[in-house]
Amino acid sequence: MIPPLRNDRFLRALNRQPVDQTPVWMMRQAGRYLPEYRMTRSQAGDFMSLCKNPQLACEVTMQPLERYPLDAAILFSDILTIPDAMECGLYFEAGEGPRFQRPVRTSADIDALPIPPMAEALDYVMSAIKTIRAELNGKVPLIGFSGSPWTLATYMIEGCGSKEYRYAKGLMYSDPIALHVLLEKLTMAVTDYLNAQIDAGAQAVQIFDTWGGVLTEPAYREFSLAYMAKVISGLKRECGGQKVPVILFTKGGGGWLEAMADTGCDALGLDWTVDLGACRRRVGNRVALQGNLDPSVLFGSDKQVILEVGRLLQSFGAHPGHVFNLGHGINQFVDPDRPATMIKAVQQISREIHAGS
Amino acid sequence: MIPPLRNDRFLRALNRQPVDQTPVWMMRQAGRYLPEYRMTRSQAGDFMSLCKNPQLACEVTMQPLERYPLDAAILFSDILTIPDAMECGLYFEAGEGPRFQRPVRTSADIDALPIPPMAEALDYVMSAIKTIRAELNGKVPLIGFSGSPWTLATYMIEGCGSKEYRYAKGLMYSDPIALHVLLEKLTMAVTDYLNAQIDAGAQAVQIFDTWGGVLTEPAYREFSLAYMAKVISGLKRECGGQKVPVILFTKGGGGWLEAMADTGCDALGLDWTVDLGACRRRVGNRVALQGNLDPSVLFGSDKQVILEVGRLLQSFGAHPGHVFNLGHGINQFVDPDRPATMIKAVQQISREIHAGS
Repeated sequence: MIPPLRNDRFLRALNRQPVDQTPVWMMRQAGRYLPEYRMTRSQAGDFMSLCKNPQLACEVTMQPLERYPLDAAILFSDILTIPDAMECGLYFEAGEGPRFQRPVRTSADIDALPIPPMAEALDYVMSAIKTIRAELNGKVPLIGFSGSPWTLATYMIEGCGSKEYRYAKGLMYSDPIALHVLLEKLTMAVTDYLNAQIDAGAQAVQIFDTWGGVLTEPAYREFSLAYMAKVISGLKRECGGQKVPVILFTKGGGGWLEAMADTGCDALGLDWTVDLGACRRRVGNRVALQGNLDPSVLFGSDKQVILEVGRLLQSFGAHPGHVFNLGHGINQFVDPDRPATMIKAVQQISREIHAGS
Repeated sequence: MIPPLRNDRFLRALNRQPVDQTPVWMMRQAGRYLPEYRMTRSQAGDFMSLCKNPQLACEVTMQPLERYPLDAAILFSDILTIPDAMECGLYFEAGEGPRFQRPVRTSADIDALPIPPMAEALDYVMSAIKTIRAELNGKVPLIGFSGSPWTLATYMIEGCGSKEYRYAKGLMYSDPIALHVLLEKLTMAVTDYLNAQIDAGAQAVQIFDTWGGVLTEPAYREFSLAYMAKVISGLKRECGGQKVPVILFTKGGGGWLEAMADTGCDALGLDWTVDLGACRRRVGNRVALQGNLDPSVLFGSDKQVILEVGRLLQSFGAHPGHVFNLGHGINQFVDPDRPATMIKAVQQISREIHAGS
């Protein structure tokens, strides 16, 4: 019933097995930089309507794969589905980021939060995964994902995006116990959500810790990393007899890679501020690495894109265990010709590196 | 004529000499969190009018010193005075950040930029420094400052604040030579500006590299660090027979401290994401360190503020060469009672640490 996977480079690299060429995908690869995405999005109405329609979510998930020879698909969804399922009242203001009608600020708010079974509360996500798997038909693996407990907590506490985390850090530094209670609840929700995604067909999962990097080192360990480790220890690591690798991505977490590798994850996502080769030397063969081109390189010329791709691949070398990616999501103003140049360069240059090893 | 300095803890710490207690100041200490600042600001009209009025700039510079036992004053000004003097047409939109009427995007734009002598073009800054020195009357030293060439370039190229640096990084990755020409011009301007500040009476200077941390490591070295090193090598390091220390602060630069210490600066400013003790072990006795409490700790309780201050001071230990500061500017929503708690804790705890050494 399940078609065999025709391209397993991505899963092989995550498992630190040799590959013919370095697999490549892009964070936010289904997104606004693609005219075909903007067209589907305008049909759907608002952003969450697109996320909640499995057929359209499948359509936009497939769009970058039709345009580029990518080695993985990623579920089209949003990290704020969990707070939405926990009845925070997610909405989008035109021209603004996401907002919540009911921010979570007090112990009473936290105690009142429901944790519904995610397979049911977010059945539209599970339907999207099943639809995409059928549509992929074994072409490449499908990645599922969730925000980290800390990252979800910041949105729920602030009620919107933030630069300063006035309320989230205010809670951390005035009532840390209350924050721990919230993070425990979110850890249960994230674990359940990712397991439901794996049951539905996700072949790898990534935890996006978008805001872990705004913490001090002790606060990162206590309020973000510890809960991600707990999520990982609670995950089913198998889907249809295949191992399901787990990728951990803390933006701005370059100083803490050794501790991140201790969580039991299979791979670390890296932003562009760290040197890929130096990171490999730090974590050795314990985990694979995913990254880490500066997304802004795609604002440059083809020549510079190729130079930067080459520099990055050479820095990692011929070792197994690298998934090429951007260090953050692709920007909406990127010309879709630049990723084509980037992906072609990854394939050509990495093929030579791997052939020479 | 020049009154002797009655409190030299700050300069002693920058020169890695022993002190009785760790000196403390706060980035953006003259700012919106103070009701007296908001009152003066409303008298001045807009923000740049406040910067351009030496009497009012002096008034707001002195306000935090009247409230708290701080060990240094910092010139009240803005990092965008240089682009303003270079005729980029600085203006402030209500509720928005700074903007430029004439962003710098092309080689022609860059070639056309004037570099006026800063002592004349920014004479209001020099008048403010002289006024503040007279008003301080030797109470504590006065810090002058400038944005780094790269940080100023990002604002001038984008024309406003940015999260993605679409145009600045676009130029870096399509026409790096043009960007180097701009950075050379800004290096001349910044060097001249800081020397004029030192001539006017600045007793230490800080280079704010607010946006160096958004670069890859090679790009940081090539487009930010190299130009800061050039600025530092061109500075007069003396004011009235006293050495003028230079502090280099790259926000997000925690991975590159060793290279930053090689610029010839006297001290490195640290943001809060790095462990202060680990940083000291990395740079040893080569430079002093300034920082690095998470500014958001000031949203917490007095108890947590004291705990975090103690943790930070213990992490550095009894060695000479620490200036206590926040890891970034103080937030406008902080209750002015929290900094009072913080400063008192720094003094009490550090006095014990230094007495025991």
